[in-house]
Amino acid sequence: MAAAPGSVTDVWSSLMRESDGGRLRVAIGQIPVAVGAIGRNAERIAEVMAWAEHCGADVLVLPELALTGYPVADLVLHREFVAEAEEAAAGLAEIAGETTTVVGTVTRVPARRSWDSVERDVSISAVVLNRGEVRGAYHKILLPTYGAFDEGRNIAPGGQADALWAIGDVVAGISICEDLWSGDGPPEAQARAGAQILLAPNASPYHRTKRAGRERHTAQLARRNGVPLVYANLVGGQDDIVFDGSSLVIGADGTLLYRAPAFREDRAVLDVALPAPRVLTTRPTTVHAVPRPRRPPADAPRPHDAAGELEEIWGALCTGTRDFVEKNGFRRVILGLSGGMDAAFTAALAAEALGPDAVLGVAMPGPDTDPDELDAARDVAEALGIGFAVVPLEPLVSASASVLASATAVHGPWTTEALDAPAHPAQLRPGVLTTMSAAHGLLLLATTNKTELSIGAAIPHTDTVGGFAPLRDCPKTLLYRLAAHPHVGPGRIPRHVLEKRTSAQERFGEGFPSYEVLDVIVQRYVQYGEGVEDLAARGYDVDVVLDVLARIDAAESVRRQAPLGVTISPRAFGTDRRMPVTNAWRPTRRRDSGRVDPAHARFPLGPETAADPDR
Amino acid sequence: MAAAPGSVTDVWSSLMRESDGGRLRVAIGQIPVAVGAIGRNAERIAEVMAWAEHCGADVLVLPELALTGYPVADLVLHREFVAEAEEAAAGLAEIAGETTTVVGTVTRVPARRSWDSVERDVSISAVVLNRGEVRGAYHKILLPTYGAFDEGRNIAPGGQADALWAIGDVVAGISICEDLWSGDGPPEAQARAGAQILLAPNASPYHRTKRAGRERHTAQLARRNGVPLVYANLVGGQDDIVFDGSSLVIGADGTLLYRAPAFREDRAVLDVALPAPRVLTTRPTTVHAVPRPRRPPADAPRPHDAAGELEEIWGALCTGTRDFVEKNGFRRVILGLSGGMDAAFTAALAAEALGPDAVLGVAMPGPDTDPDELDAARDVAEALGIGFAVVPLEPLVSASASVLASATAVHGPWTTEALDAPAHPAQLRPGVLTTMSAAHGLLLLATTNKTELSIGAAIPHTDTVGGFAPLRDCPKTLLYRLAAHPHVGPGRIPRHVLEKRTSAQERFGEGFPSYEVLDVIVQRYVQYGEGVEDLAARGYDVDVVLDVLARIDAAESVRRQAPLGVTISPRAFGTDRRMPVTNAWRPTRRRDSGRVDPAHARFPLGPETAADPDR
Repeated sequence: MAAAPGSVTDVWSSLMRESDGGRLRVAIGQIPVAVGAIGRNAERIAEVMAWAEHCGADVLVLPELALTGYPVADLVLHREFVAEAEEAAAGLAEIAGETTTVVGTVTRVPARRSWDSVERDVSISAVVLNRGEVRGAYHKILLPTYGAFDEGRNIAPGGQADALWAIGDVVAGISICEDLWSGDGPPEAQARAGAQILLAPNASPYHRTKRAGRERHTAQLARRNGVPLVYANLVGGQDDIVFDGSSLVIGADGTLLYRAPAFREDRAVLDVALPAPRVLTTRPTTVHAVPRPRRPPADAPRPHDAAGELEEIWGALCTGTRDFVEKNGFRRVILGLSGGMDAAFTAALAAEALGPDAVLGVAMPGPDTDPDELDAARDVAEALGIGFAVVPLEPLVSASASVLASATAVHGPWTTEALDAPAHPAQLRPGVLTTMSAAHGLLLLATTNKTELSIGAAIPHTDTVGGFAPLRDCPKTLLYRLAAHPHVGPGRIPRHVLEKRTSAQERFGEGFPSYEVLDVIVQRYVQYGEGVEDLAARGYDVDVVLDVLARIDAAESVRRQAPLGVTISPRAFGTDRRMPVTNAWRPTRRRDSGRVDPAHARFPLGPETAADPDR
Repeated sequence: MAAAPGSVTDVWSSLMRESDGGRLRVAIGQIPVAVGAIGRNAERIAEVMAWAEHCGADVLVLPELALTGYPVADLVLHREFVAEAEEAAAGLAEIAGETTTVVGTVTRVPARRSWDSVERDVSISAVVLNRGEVRGAYHKILLPTYGAFDEGRNIAPGGQADALWAIGDVVAGISICEDLWSGDGPPEAQARAGAQILLAPNASPYHRTKRAGRERHTAQLARRNGVPLVYANLVGGQDDIVFDGSSLVIGADGTLLYRAPAFREDRAVLDVALPAPRVLTTRPTTVHAVPRPRRPPADAPRPHDAAGELEEIWGALCTGTRDFVEKNGFRRVILGLSGGMDAAFTAALAAEALGPDAVLGVAMPGPDTDPDELDAARDVAEALGIGFAVVPLEPLVSASASVLASATAVHGPWTTEALDAPAHPAQLRPGVLTTMSAAHGLLLLATTNKTELSIGAAIPHTDTVGGFAPLRDCPKTLLYRLAAHPHVGPGRIPRHVLEKRTSAQERFGEGFPSYEVLDVIVQRYVQYGEGVEDLAARGYDVDVVLDVLARIDAAESVRRQAPLGVTISPRAFGTDRRMPVTNAWRPTRRRDSGRVDPAHARFPLGPETAADPDR
């Protein structure tokens, strides 16, 4: 186990290292950037570079694709996009001083063919800037193409795993994100070749167990290779992923030297003890040849505490929602406020993310709406301090019933009676909300949750209508847990709203299991690829399992058109789990399949999650 | 150039070959399958196997993933899915007789790591079945990961490019789809190793220039390697792609020996002349050792004529629409019939694909609707013979205006006046259609077209609401061309509807260029990655170009939630072109960028398209 910072082991280990290779002053910039905003991102990077220079840092490490934003997807197919990024990197080099800056961007590289017949010529790179020059670039070798990641689509893999960089009298290796995770990849090649420290730009999205897995893995990596690791991560939301930051500096013995906070910008500078110089088996690229200045040690910053699971989730939801709204040019949001828990929760989240004045809740009581529900909606709005409007739906329901009844039909099989369709208030509410959102430039938040989206219980074009669905990856049982937490989550929502629960049977129908069972089945099937027999072996009723699994697969079309939301699980529907809409396959009970140990399920969740089979 | 079948060159070449390696009786099964319908697909394959056996075929070639459907996406992450496919392949082997069947499916293979840190253990394979046994499997090596293709995500690459198969006294190579396209891949390795014929299962989706490129490339490939090629393709729609079939048999000299029809099932058997046996540099897997029977030559089937461009597009639209509707369990569709061209076109397409009785057009005249439009909608419905209903919208518009006006607001910045939102008929129509579609189990067809989706001119949650948008990839100018064609396209739609055109300015606003200009800018930017300078060099006004390109990028959120449609272009929005929704990048005029020759644009459209730069 890594020793706690400040412990005797830590101090001893630091002293021991001090006498080996000296100390390198390392700065880390955990910055939020926006995809495509190359100019604004460059300004932010320049500002951090000036700060690092001011701190006398030898090296500044910034995240993967900090200059372009992550992911770039098909943007790199536009020549101008890559050219702009290259010019911006050259511009940053011009202002680079004595601090060596390692910053992620895309670069044009010689075209090469890899896993298919197409040549690719854009690399995800870390450019190395010093004293007015781009001194070189490391090109990412391992290109994640699973889960939320698509890098194999457009990116050419780098070819030199053991590239080294001479920064004054220190030899460093650079690895980018996925490069760190194979167990025998670029970091290992660089350490064997003589690196004394590993500099690692990352764009590692949050999910519920990510941070702990990342800290365990990076500590092992540093210890195994006997080199310190500087792990700089992005922070902030981008479409349906959210980067938590939680950047790290790990000592050569695996000690956690620094942990940045989650979900906020951070910068830190610290002196990192280096192992003694090693025999070099690769010729390093010289970044500069100026020895480190003699100076007193910098004060070591204290690692930020790791937040608890629910605090982290709440942070992810707020950050992802705020960044989606703001980065898409909206200042205010609108949502339907039913008086139920999901809507109240969404409103609370929006109020925390954007401020209560930026949120308008609209209650649309229909002819059959219980007056208590309208009261509950009002109580929620008042407690949160958000805007609140009441739009009585009755006239619209009557008019809808009347126009549907007046439908006159012609031609063969379509008689007038066959056209008879009852007017549903649920199907009229979206029209009110989209009209108001369009008239006032408000982003419409959908209030659906993951349990509903899993089984397709939401009526199409009702609860899923909107521009963003913050709770899209939150199962109902998680919302209950968050609601019960004293310090996070819905906060000021009146208890009587949070505690008024509708069972899954009331919501979806008699045949359904409880939310508790439903959510576990969804998680086991979607996240770990468990099958009918596996779930049966866990004690679930086979008929219930078959029914739920069939519903999950049949609901793909509903999910495909639902808005993006904040991903908090290792395999969210959508980006992480890509299924055909047109899909006849339904799991069946099979005689010969044994129970799958989830730790060994062949489900490439990525290495970070594989270490955490129980989430 | 390949000689026309039946020409002197063809006959001479066949005679010459006859004396070399004799003739192999080859059967080809161009079959429609459904993703996930392993059992039904297996039944269809078994039926074709019985036919091929009856024909005395030495070899039957079936398409890529014929057993599972293509694409399998994340379905292969479910262990049961792969196990079911393997069992089904074993079941087909049991019925295999003297004909050797080569059929595409997925197989479990030893786990291997490739381009990232994740191990993959599922292969896209061609299993070789003969006399009751699976005699082996070829594992696809090149895994397309661009455009509509995602194979790098879940599939492990095969490792043996020069695998050979001894089928009696004939040595064959097997390559799967992308394997054929690198110019120095498995076909070349197999021919060098001694293959006398190449058997190629394919899942090659249609786009406008695909067939011609495919025929040119396969003829070159056969001639270059001196071996005949049997190219079996899937047929039918799957989500937003549609396989055209158009399977091929090419002689060793590049002669087209057989062309299957586009967009319908087909089977053919023919005797193919083989080159003389070659020196083997790889040891072939023995499929069987029984010499070919002596028998009179089979009658050569006549190649089907290639359809013209517009006929092919119409075939793709009908096939894609019919298969999406039917494979998703619907029998009937509903759409809004405005009296305009897009709606009329969608109705005509649905009537052709599903039969007129399966289509209900709903006119929803609002208070300001021109009576001529209602008449036009009625004329369209009558001409097509589809169901038609009129739902007068006025009561709904009044009620909507009244409920929106009655919205009462509380809290700070949200005054009642600030909530004032005009009721738009366009925003009320979707609610009527979704209510009717839900009540009667009708799939709602959206009538939007590619031009609208490109620039985001469709009002969100109006024209894009639905379960399928058949014209999603059809630019307005293409609809004009189809409408003018005497034998395809909207057919019976009254001329006065087709000829009543609204200009782009009338539709979108004064600042817009004509549809002709708009569609070219969209195509050049999206399809070829041309930039501002390139378009300026083509003579387009820079300010217009900048405005249109910015609109294209800003409309990603509209497209993301729009329904799937039929892909007919080499780079349709959505599957083929994946862009972040949250994206600050907008093309700008750059001083230093030269004009890009589109033939050399670094846009990996895939090899088939690269040969056709002008589409």
